[in-house]
Amino acid sequence: MAKTKGRVTLPSEGGFLNETKAMMERWGADALRDSDGTKLPEEIKALDASIYTTYFVARGHNEFAQQHMEECQQLYLMSKRVTAQTEQVEISFMDGYFHQQVKPDYYHDCKKWWEVIDRTLGQVVLPKDWQVDQERDVVMIQNGKPFHEYTVSFLVYAIWDPTQMYNHITNQWGDKPHEIPFDVRQPCSWQFAKDYLVQWLKENPRTDVVRFTTFFYHFTLVFNDQAKEKFVDWFGYGATVSVKALEEFEQEYGYRLRPEDIVDNGYYNSTFRVPSKQYLDYMDFIQRFVAKKAGELIKLVHEAGREAMMFLGDNWIGTEPYGPYFPEIGLDAVVGSVGGGATLRLISDIPGVTYTEGRFLPYFFPDTFYPGNNPCLEAEENWLCARRAMMRKPLDRIGYGGYLSLACQFPEFVDYIEQVTDEFRKLYENIGGSRPYCGLTVGILNCWGKLRSWQAFMVAHALWYQQTYSYFGVLESLSGAAVNVVFLSFEEIRKEGIPEDIDVLINAGAAGTAFSGGEEWLDERVLTKIRRFVYHGGGFIGIGEPSAIHFGGRFFQLADVLGVDKELGFSLSTDRYWKQEAPQHFLKEEENQEFSFGEGMKDVYALSEKTEIVNYSQGSVQLSANSYGKGRGIYIAGLPYSHENTRLLLRCLYYSAKRETEMKRWFAENFWCEVHAYPERNLYAVVNNSKMPQSTMIYDGAGHPETVFLEGKEILWKAINSKITN
Amino acid sequence: MAKTKGRVTLPSEGGFLNETKAMMERWGADALRDSDGTKLPEEIKALDASIYTTYFVARGHNEFAQQHMEECQQLYLMSKRVTAQTEQVEISFMDGYFHQQVKPDYYHDCKKWWEVIDRTLGQVVLPKDWQVDQERDVVMIQNGKPFHEYTVSFLVYAIWDPTQMYNHITNQWGDKPHEIPFDVRQPCSWQFAKDYLVQWLKENPRTDVVRFTTFFYHFTLVFNDQAKEKFVDWFGYGATVSVKALEEFEQEYGYRLRPEDIVDNGYYNSTFRVPSKQYLDYMDFIQRFVAKKAGELIKLVHEAGREAMMFLGDNWIGTEPYGPYFPEIGLDAVVGSVGGGATLRLISDIPGVTYTEGRFLPYFFPDTFYPGNNPCLEAEENWLCARRAMMRKPLDRIGYGGYLSLACQFPEFVDYIEQVTDEFRKLYENIGGSRPYCGLTVGILNCWGKLRSWQAFMVAHALWYQQTYSYFGVLESLSGAAVNVVFLSFEEIRKEGIPEDIDVLINAGAAGTAFSGGEEWLDERVLTKIRRFVYHGGGFIGIGEPSAIHFGGRFFQLADVLGVDKELGFSLSTDRYWKQEAPQHFLKEEENQEFSFGEGMKDVYALSEKTEIVNYSQGSVQLSANSYGKGRGIYIAGLPYSHENTRLLLRCLYYSAKRETEMKRWFAENFWCEVHAYPERNLYAVVNNSKMPQSTMIYDGAGHPETVFLEGKEILWKAINSKITN
Repeated sequence: MAKTKGRVTLPSEGGFLNETKAMMERWGADALRDSDGTKLPEEIKALDASIYTTYFVARGHNEFAQQHMEECQQLYLMSKRVTAQTEQVEISFMDGYFHQQVKPDYYHDCKKWWEVIDRTLGQVVLPKDWQVDQERDVVMIQNGKPFHEYTVSFLVYAIWDPTQMYNHITNQWGDKPHEIPFDVRQPCSWQFAKDYLVQWLKENPRTDVVRFTTFFYHFTLVFNDQAKEKFVDWFGYGATVSVKALEEFEQEYGYRLRPEDIVDNGYYNSTFRVPSKQYLDYMDFIQRFVAKKAGELIKLVHEAGREAMMFLGDNWIGTEPYGPYFPEIGLDAVVGSVGGGATLRLISDIPGVTYTEGRFLPYFFPDTFYPGNNPCLEAEENWLCARRAMMRKPLDRIGYGGYLSLACQFPEFVDYIEQVTDEFRKLYENIGGSRPYCGLTVGILNCWGKLRSWQAFMVAHALWYQQTYSYFGVLESLSGAAVNVVFLSFEEIRKEGIPEDIDVLINAGAAGTAFSGGEEWLDERVLTKIRRFVYHGGGFIGIGEPSAIHFGGRFFQLADVLGVDKELGFSLSTDRYWKQEAPQHFLKEEENQEFSFGEGMKDVYALSEKTEIVNYSQGSVQLSANSYGKGRGIYIAGLPYSHENTRLLLRCLYYSAKRETEMKRWFAENFWCEVHAYPERNLYAVVNNSKMPQSTMIYDGAGHPETVFLEGKEILWKAINSKITN
Repeated sequence: MAKTKGRVTLPSEGGFLNETKAMMERWGADALRDSDGTKLPEEIKALDASIYTTYFVARGHNEFAQQHMEECQQLYLMSKRVTAQTEQVEISFMDGYFHQQVKPDYYHDCKKWWEVIDRTLGQVVLPKDWQVDQERDVVMIQNGKPFHEYTVSFLVYAIWDPTQMYNHITNQWGDKPHEIPFDVRQPCSWQFAKDYLVQWLKENPRTDVVRFTTFFYHFTLVFNDQAKEKFVDWFGYGATVSVKALEEFEQEYGYRLRPEDIVDNGYYNSTFRVPSKQYLDYMDFIQRFVAKKAGELIKLVHEAGREAMMFLGDNWIGTEPYGPYFPEIGLDAVVGSVGGGATLRLISDIPGVTYTEGRFLPYFFPDTFYPGNNPCLEAEENWLCARRAMMRKPLDRIGYGGYLSLACQFPEFVDYIEQVTDEFRKLYENIGGSRPYCGLTVGILNCWGKLRSWQAFMVAHALWYQQTYSYFGVLESLSGAAVNVVFLSFEEIRKEGIPEDIDVLINAGAAGTAFSGGEEWLDERVLTKIRRFVYHGGGFIGIGEPSAIHFGGRFFQLADVLGVDKELGFSLSTDRYWKQEAPQHFLKEEENQEFSFGEGMKDVYALSEKTEIVNYSQGSVQLSANSYGKGRGIYIAGLPYSHENTRLLLRCLYYSAKRETEMKRWFAENFWCEVHAYPERNLYAVVNNSKMPQSTMIYDGAGHPETVFLEGKEILWKAINSKITN
């Protein structure tokens, strides 16, 4: 492969000049960055590369913060639940929290800003019936109801930035100061943040790109009294709360938020919760604030002639890259961590920025780069997984993080990344910003829609959860599939209908969650629009507990479309004779196909003999299809990510839209391989997603089949209308 | 074993006199019965035995019924669901029903008695907006809402008795007349029923026991258009409905029932549904009617100097043997089919009758009694399973059904039943009506309480369902355990509190069902009473989804008592570190213990490190315990019936009540064996429930351990305070 250069960012560090030069050469890097804990010395900054410098807006300035402790960031927390044994109840509300991270806000009137709730009744306890003992951090309830459960929702000040806290504790930084997060909503903090940036830009003339890590509010991350993680929500707005924010919200929206609107039964409005009106209002309020303030900072960066890049993580809350206010920030770039295809698309699809960058795995940290370990394995896994998504919508740049000095000691790794960077540049050039061929347009329907594009089913960014992997696989599969993917909310289809270009709708998730939709399915506008859509030829794919809420004798409200419903125990009296799998079916035409539905589902039954049962196991339909007018409904119990399941999903997409004859246009029969076509570039690529050599029949868009052989991991680029030769 | 006689009923038949005599001798039978399809000839009736004769009240008299078709029994049925494609909707409401079983009631005003429902909105369609086409059995809706789902709830006449229909179709009886069920609520039918009985009693002077099979209303059994079972609910009141009943109900209760109160979304008030106020009223209304009318018939039987026995099944609806009106019927006896321990107790615990009888398996039918098959196996299984329950509360009589002529051809079977009958008489004599030692009193808490004692988790009597076996096992285990078992309803504990003698409460079942309790768990009176009970030393065992309804941040409303809750996806953000199984625990002290939780449960997590996790598998707590005041909560994911699980349940019972030191009073270490003590009789029995020889350490009540050896299936009877010798 020809040696190319550019589009690659490297970490560097002091005392490492020559090696940095060599690595820049090998990997064709054109940008250098510092990391959390490293600084670039002048000699390295002088190299022929763009210089990225990490910048923290709202932490790392304790000299300021300590003088303005009333401007600390705040959180609403819920105490543990305490069952009353008599009418007197004491709640040590700080129990289980980490005193080094948070401390109760006794500055503001507790009676006004806190809430004591009888959780057994779901009722607020009158403020006259409780007192706070500030010495002991205890709320004392009088006139309690014996054997009811009580909680306190209380305000705290956050006195330690969660990311620094995590690094500090993990790396045992000892007496290194705890960085105090301050709130730019407060006057002094905001003035300080601006002034400091102006000054900093002057003092860092060699910085080309200010890498904001990030802006103002960290995702919710709360530790317990053992200094271990207690609560983590990568999407959580917990740390955006403050008395000032609540007051300004009330002024603007004309109603007051209750603590419970934030605390939400202790769920804290997890992204899995169907969002309340209040919480959506609050998010919008915060997004507008963050966009406005961040925009002012970016203006300063631009005035200083530099570029502004945002790290997608840590203090990213309120930026919502797919939200309506994000473009107003005026960023040049976004950089984020790439765990696989879906997280790559989460970055590469972000609208309104000039370029995107992905930080690939592994980090150059001693947990991977130690003698005897082969870091190539993780790199290869990460690259192959993410590369599928690259073929659909490439990032503009790739990069790495950590200590380059460590990585250098692994020559095989250096060789491998050299191949990766060249392969990346080649695919980027070949695709050339063009739109790849998409056989279908797929809409993912959930409560969040576009706002959280590619972010469904995540708790902590890209971590595996037993309750989510069977759904997250849908996103991962689609991230590299030859289809157009859009994200739709119930609100959007309620108001604007299903967009005309949608061929297939997918609704996936556990009952009651924001991804399945919960009470949204009681809305006849949603139901009738989808039924009409399918009736006229659209596809509807339900995964897990789609359209699920128990009402009117149905659990799946779209059971008529899906052809299946789930037994909750109320209709066991009804005989169900339809368990026979269809002997042949389009959804099981792969060779040696083995189904894997992840956690699967129990108690799903076919409504009638009309339902085409493709897989029936564990006493339940796991995969089925159902004709509905000119379209089809398809049920899948779960779809963990695999190449085989990616192919199954593709089959489901085409079958549901009754366009299965169109599947084999740009197509590889062997499911380890995929074909991506770029008509505007007159090119197509046959990709081997596996490490093993593969042979496959492919179809070239005009329907011509041909057999090709690919080395492990190979991408074969060919001109459209030319013969393939190996 | 000494030869004894009595307490056994045999079927007999014509042309079989000598064999009948011989079998009476062998099995010590003192009663003879006919069966459905056989009649006893005079020569057999002349034998020295009590003669039972099957009697049908409300069917088998077509000459009468055909002259009074307006007095046919009725049902409310729900049509299939039809999705509107335009504003005009046609519903062929009879689709899927069996025209030979039911026909629409066009006699009464459809607009008054039927209901068309928009199931998408859950709203009734105004009668002016629909018409019935009686020619085509179609309801035509005008002004329908496109893509809404509609159903029709309509009245039918039942023109074929379901039991006779089943037998007729199964045995291909061809042109044998269909027996038409008539409704004794109607004047002519009631007069006929009485007159006929009086006449019949005269014509059958040799009948000692009138075996009612049964009274007036069959459990709900509806066939489909393929003449196969479509809906079966052994508890269903579907066939009790009629216009006359509904009118009388309105008069009495002051409000009118809607068709939907009966149809219930197509669930037809399955026993798994949390019953509505309306349905409970209706059941009460029917029970009072049935008790009154049946009582009048029983009076006629008694006036004729005969005994009255009721078969527990078929047309038993409204009798509710554990209900408040049952004693008013004045029956002498109840006979029912014994499938195992729980169904035996269902019969033997019935209050207010002089004696109970169980019909054991196998039936003497050709499906079991064919050359080459060994009917002993089924008999042995059935007897061993039911015998456990016999040891706690014996039936007064046992019997068999079918063709004795068939059974006679299997000498090994005849031998085996000879042993069984002798063993039965011996245990009956030894127990002598005394109360066996009970270590604890256990209350099963569900929506039905005492009314459906031993009847929880059943759909069709004693059939296996994937959704129920993990719960039904609790009843089966308890049926033969050395504890006192009572059944409690939420209403009862709400009004009267938890009875003082209860040591442990059990709540078992799937979320939302009548057995788990559904919305009952939103009632703070229920919650606080149970919490207080446990706090003061009671035990609470939750199985499956106990106390489950999503409210206030909890799914298990008694999570604080149980120490576990189930993750619905809303609190994935919360870290849960408690997955470690306790290395040693009272609940796993059995030798070679292997857990089997049946369907088990997913996503159950411990609330804190306080919860004692006994088994954690499939990413979920399957078995755990939690101290709560002076008592304990215990969680079990599921408890299918086995001897090992019976022992596990016993351990849970003692542990939850914090009385585990008392478990080994009358006790066998080997879980295949059980010890039953009868202090009033100064006797105890060591029972080997397995077919294999067993040795076990036993404890004799005074705490003395001793090792005993038992042959397979053996019962060892010993005087209390005497030494055991083999």
